[in-house]
Amino acid sequence: MRKYSHDTSVRVRLPHRPGQLARFADTVARAGGLLGDITTHQLGEAWTVRDVVLETEDAAHTERVVAALRALEGVEVLAVSDQVFARHQGGKVHCGSRVKVDQVTDLRYIYTPGVARVSLALQAEPEKAWELTSIGRSVGIFTNGTRVLGLGNIGALASLPVMEGKAVLYDRFAGLSAVPLLVDTLDPGRFIDTVELLARSFGGIHLEDIRIPDCFTIEDELVRRLQRPVMHDDQHGTATVALAAIRNACWLTGLDPRVCRVGQLGLGAAGSAIARLCLAWGAREVLVSDVNPQAVARMVALGAVASDLGTITKTCDIVVATTGKPGLLSPAMVGRGQVLFALSNPDPEIAPDAALAAGAAFAGDGRSINNALAFPGIFKGALAVRARAITPRMLLAAADAIARLADPGEVVPSPFHPDVHTNVARAVADAATAEGLAGTARA
Amino acid sequence: MRKYSHDTSVRVRLPHRPGQLARFADTVARAGGLLGDITTHQLGEAWTVRDVVLETEDAAHTERVVAALRALEGVEVLAVSDQVFARHQGGKVHCGSRVKVDQVTDLRYIYTPGVARVSLALQAEPEKAWELTSIGRSVGIFTNGTRVLGLGNIGALASLPVMEGKAVLYDRFAGLSAVPLLVDTLDPGRFIDTVELLARSFGGIHLEDIRIPDCFTIEDELVRRLQRPVMHDDQHGTATVALAAIRNACWLTGLDPRVCRVGQLGLGAAGSAIARLCLAWGAREVLVSDVNPQAVARMVALGAVASDLGTITKTCDIVVATTGKPGLLSPAMVGRGQVLFALSNPDPEIAPDAALAAGAAFAGDGRSINNALAFPGIFKGALAVRARAITPRMLLAAADAIARLADPGEVVPSPFHPDVHTNVARAVADAATAEGLAGTARA
Repeated sequence: MRKYSHDTSVRVRLPHRPGQLARFADTVARAGGLLGDITTHQLGEAWTVRDVVLETEDAAHTERVVAALRALEGVEVLAVSDQVFARHQGGKVHCGSRVKVDQVTDLRYIYTPGVARVSLALQAEPEKAWELTSIGRSVGIFTNGTRVLGLGNIGALASLPVMEGKAVLYDRFAGLSAVPLLVDTLDPGRFIDTVELLARSFGGIHLEDIRIPDCFTIEDELVRRLQRPVMHDDQHGTATVALAAIRNACWLTGLDPRVCRVGQLGLGAAGSAIARLCLAWGAREVLVSDVNPQAVARMVALGAVASDLGTITKTCDIVVATTGKPGLLSPAMVGRGQVLFALSNPDPEIAPDAALAAGAAFAGDGRSINNALAFPGIFKGALAVRARAITPRMLLAAADAIARLADPGEVVPSPFHPDVHTNVARAVADAATAEGLAGTARA
Repeated sequence: MRKYSHDTSVRVRLPHRPGQLARFADTVARAGGLLGDITTHQLGEAWTVRDVVLETEDAAHTERVVAALRALEGVEVLAVSDQVFARHQGGKVHCGSRVKVDQVTDLRYIYTPGVARVSLALQAEPEKAWELTSIGRSVGIFTNGTRVLGLGNIGALASLPVMEGKAVLYDRFAGLSAVPLLVDTLDPGRFIDTVELLARSFGGIHLEDIRIPDCFTIEDELVRRLQRPVMHDDQHGTATVALAAIRNACWLTGLDPRVCRVGQLGLGAAGSAIARLCLAWGAREVLVSDVNPQAVARMVALGAVASDLGTITKTCDIVVATTGKPGLLSPAMVGRGQVLFALSNPDPEIAPDAALAAGAAFAGDGRSINNALAFPGIFKGALAVRARAITPRMLLAAADAIARLADPGEVVPSPFHPDVHTNVARAVADAATAEGLAGTARA
């Protein structure tokens, strides 16, 4: 399948008569481009100026499409701008004031001398920081950029736009104040120490885009050292959304999750967390396979069964693949009635349509697993009740809340669903309270 | 002098007829309180509900004033709220989105898949981070809380409200995105390493409220390691504003700064930076004194002259005291025609009115030195031209820009002066450019 990853906004002047947009759209189609939003910028007597978003495969493809448009008689291309770079100008986040500062009196309240009383109150009773500082609704997003999206180890600085994107989603979806923090080291020990020294600056600690096995070491150790929510999103955020999708896929296909046998192919960050969450969910059996025997041993210690590609594809009701190997699964490997998630990005182990044609009852790829559904609400819920940790039970509650809001026929809702983040937060907060974790985070 | 550091908002219902507010104000005065803003909340036929801000010395004093008001016939106290704590609820800063995120298409631009192209562009050309991420207008505010305001070593967490206050001022006065970061260690080496590992997250590094001599070690070493603006505000921000005040005091009193002899009493963070900046300014001679011989030796190495209290007060045209010793200077020590700044907070070495009575040509205390005048514009200017350091020349330019905007008879302008932060930023940027530092910061 072709990937349309380049979005370009083209401002064009078209004659204002029937058929012009159709001719324009046809030209885009012939050049292999997709059309995004079309909006009217200016309306004249004889012409219209429109902003049209083109989706193309790469920069060269964009140029071909734009050249085809320029060649169209009567069409004038006024401007071409890369939507992605345009939106990144000056960065995507800003840390700003929540309080009014209009006059000298305001400084007395929010700065000196007033602030000294607040500091003294915190010195006497640190727990008041949950109320009197931003930590009650803040998350530090820590990365070293060693495993970014499908890009791999691109380094801390190059990963900053991704971290800013996460911070944007925290704000937009959960109203949380999230700060991107680049920890410029490949040494897990130094990474851990750095986050530990900074941890009191934030209510929650979000770990992001850290390579394996360092991500396991780092998360385990920080969970141990810090009395506050710590979560590596590539593991548990992904697993939460994957589980929501699995649950709905079972429901759609009439599979009874209580008797399900789950097979997990690939035990990277996402795969191992999915296997763990399926165990916590109560799947009858979770079979796992990976080229790395240590990764398999780690999961076996947690209750999974060591297996292999053949056994898993032949015997499991639900197969989840996170191997990073496009095309690993041939149609012949797909079992009739199987629920199959081939999640490797950007190219799945088997295309969903091919899996369905081969007899799968349900097939999904990485596009169905949008992390943005989980992490904002999970941290919002954990912070709301000041839980000292994010537990499997809290993640299961989040998965359940997500699953319930999917539209008929879909396995997960849109991250813009008006209730999803609130519901996830509430479910997580309730689960934390039920586990006796409410109020256990240390300031 | 009494300190009115407690601001309380009292909502009261008063009879709506002449003389009621006068009676109210009189009662506050008799109880020793000051009145702040008075606003009308509700207007009835026979009564008015007003919000009145009371300034008192401490919580017990507030209670006495409120009790006196409650005892007033016809006056009903409806609510009492501590203004400072009210403004701190939920913290004072929020890190949020600068970009529109309303629909699924927006996610394609600011998150996946679009963001991957921005990350790749930064991997290929890290300098693009100044344009495509927030670092071009961001500052990390790092502290360990070992020397906060007049409070001393209250620890990192208790200092967070102060750091949030600084971040608020960065946003309000310079439009910069500043993030408070608590580095929870007393070890300067670990502090330095932590800031170094995180430095690429921010365009500028603001150091705050770190005890001496660690603040010197930490700043010197970070300046050496990082190719970006680093500034310990308690040193250089304070010195910049102090120098602006000194310049204007000279101008007001007819003192020629080129032939001035400056005496600096106390070589803590602020005092040593003031002495250094006076040397850079070109004062004919800078005499220094401190109980710590190492602090004196450090300044002598930079060009100052070791001296003592008696010599300085007797021979200097300008005396600046930052000793932390209230009442150190007796009226007998004040020289006729001297410019004297007794800057220790909250209580000065000599009260300005006492110094004036003793013959000083000008006398000021810590209230005339508001750091908020300097740091927002200094970092804004340094970041605007991507200077790799903040130099004495840039600080002198900032002091000059501040000094020029003071109202007649005053030594510094209000931090709410409409031009001050823009002018400081421009002066700093120009100075950096003149020094060949523009474009030298590394991403």
